[in-house]
Amino acid sequence: MAEETLAGQVLKLHGLPMSSCTTRVMICLHEKGVEFELVPVDLFTGQHKQPPFLDKNPFGQIPVLEDGDLTIFESRAITQYISEKYKDQGTDLVHPGSLEQCTMVKVWSEVESHQFNPVISPIIYQFFVEPLQGKSPDQAIVDENLEKLRMVLDVYEERLGKTKYLAGDFFSLADLHHMPFLFYFMKTPWSSVVDERAKVKAWWEDISSRDAFKKVAEGMKFGEN
Amino acid sequence: MAEETLAGQVLKLHGLPMSSCTTRVMICLHEKGVEFELVPVDLFTGQHKQPPFLDKNPFGQIPVLEDGDLTIFESRAITQYISEKYKDQGTDLVHPGSLEQCTMVKVWSEVESHQFNPVISPIIYQFFVEPLQGKSPDQAIVDENLEKLRMVLDVYEERLGKTKYLAGDFFSLADLHHMPFLFYFMKTPWSSVVDERAKVKAWWEDISSRDAFKKVAEGMKFGEN
Repeated sequence: MAEETLAGQVLKLHGLPMSSCTTRVMICLHEKGVEFELVPVDLFTGQHKQPPFLDKNPFGQIPVLEDGDLTIFESRAITQYISEKYKDQGTDLVHPGSLEQCTMVKVWSEVESHQFNPVISPIIYQFFVEPLQGKSPDQAIVDENLEKLRMVLDVYEERLGKTKYLAGDFFSLADLHHMPFLFYFMKTPWSSVVDERAKVKAWWEDISSRDAFKKVAEGMKFGEN
Repeated sequence: MAEETLAGQVLKLHGLPMSSCTTRVMICLHEKGVEFELVPVDLFTGQHKQPPFLDKNPFGQIPVLEDGDLTIFESRAITQYISEKYKDQGTDLVHPGSLEQCTMVKVWSEVESHQFNPVISPIIYQFFVEPLQGKSPDQAIVDENLEKLRMVLDVYEERLGKTKYLAGDFFSLADLHHMPFLFYFMKTPWSSVVDERAKVKAWWEDISSRDAFKKVAEGMKFGEN
């Protein structure tokens, strides 16, 4: 890894402090103790859907990380990059030294992507985004996905009865990736879905009390104004 | 990585040759030239939703890989594991020696997970799975997702005008992860969505002509009987 060629430059993170995908990366940067500059992207004027932003991410989404000549999009690719590039500082989020531990980080990171995210994101969208567009939340969509979320969290409840965190007895990217959407979910009327599961509740209280997360959560004001 | 402790054991892959997620892993195993035993899972009697299978994957889904004492689920976690464990044999699918290349593999693998998969999987489901359950495909769901798929593939078309494969001028996991659903999609009445995009079409013809894929495609008979 040619890290030395990129040394001495401050990372630029294009995004917004209330965006769940931007905060996923910000939490990671704070956990690793990596200095960065947050470059705001004006979503309301559609800056992300026009050049030059589209040259950074052709899907027109935030966040984007620029590290020297390297431009990286997709929040979970950025967190992996940061965790591996800065593996010797801050919290070890990927455990590259242990075959079993690093594999379990991958497994439970994929669980977040393919089991958790697809069912929690429509709930967040209905509750926070639709009202901003003058629409009412579609309760049928909420209910359908709450039912699926309960089933996913039942598996988490069992898992967290065996290990303190999802990938094992250590905090990792697998936990971290869940935090933005869980934070917003806990502000909805359906937070009992977490609270009713003792292990999941304790896990959320633990990970959401980490200093790196608290710094980022201060800026997570989506839907509050 | 304690590879030596696992040496000499044949990997066990629990799954089915027609399952898109199982074939994602099988293509990877063939690319790496890794010997494995395919252990069939009887989905029709619900074997995957009962113990002892649920001890292997608490979400009750195929595939699951067993490598000695290590049990791994989520197909994209398994392919990463195989690609890294066997990094010195077969096709290099993750390019760990180059910061830029391995990062672009991560970026475009996340694109598959979060841009491509969510829009192509409902189309595949409506066309192949609903009829098996005695239902008609919901054309509104198909049309809505075809529209989104066109937009995703427009980005791919531009990308593939600059690099031969998604992550760069080398075949990687980022391409491989797309193959099972694209194979089935090309059997639907909407394959022109691929064929109308010259670069995407050429990319699909290239990657689907690889020996590792052709071996696996022979068993992909979903919906044909």
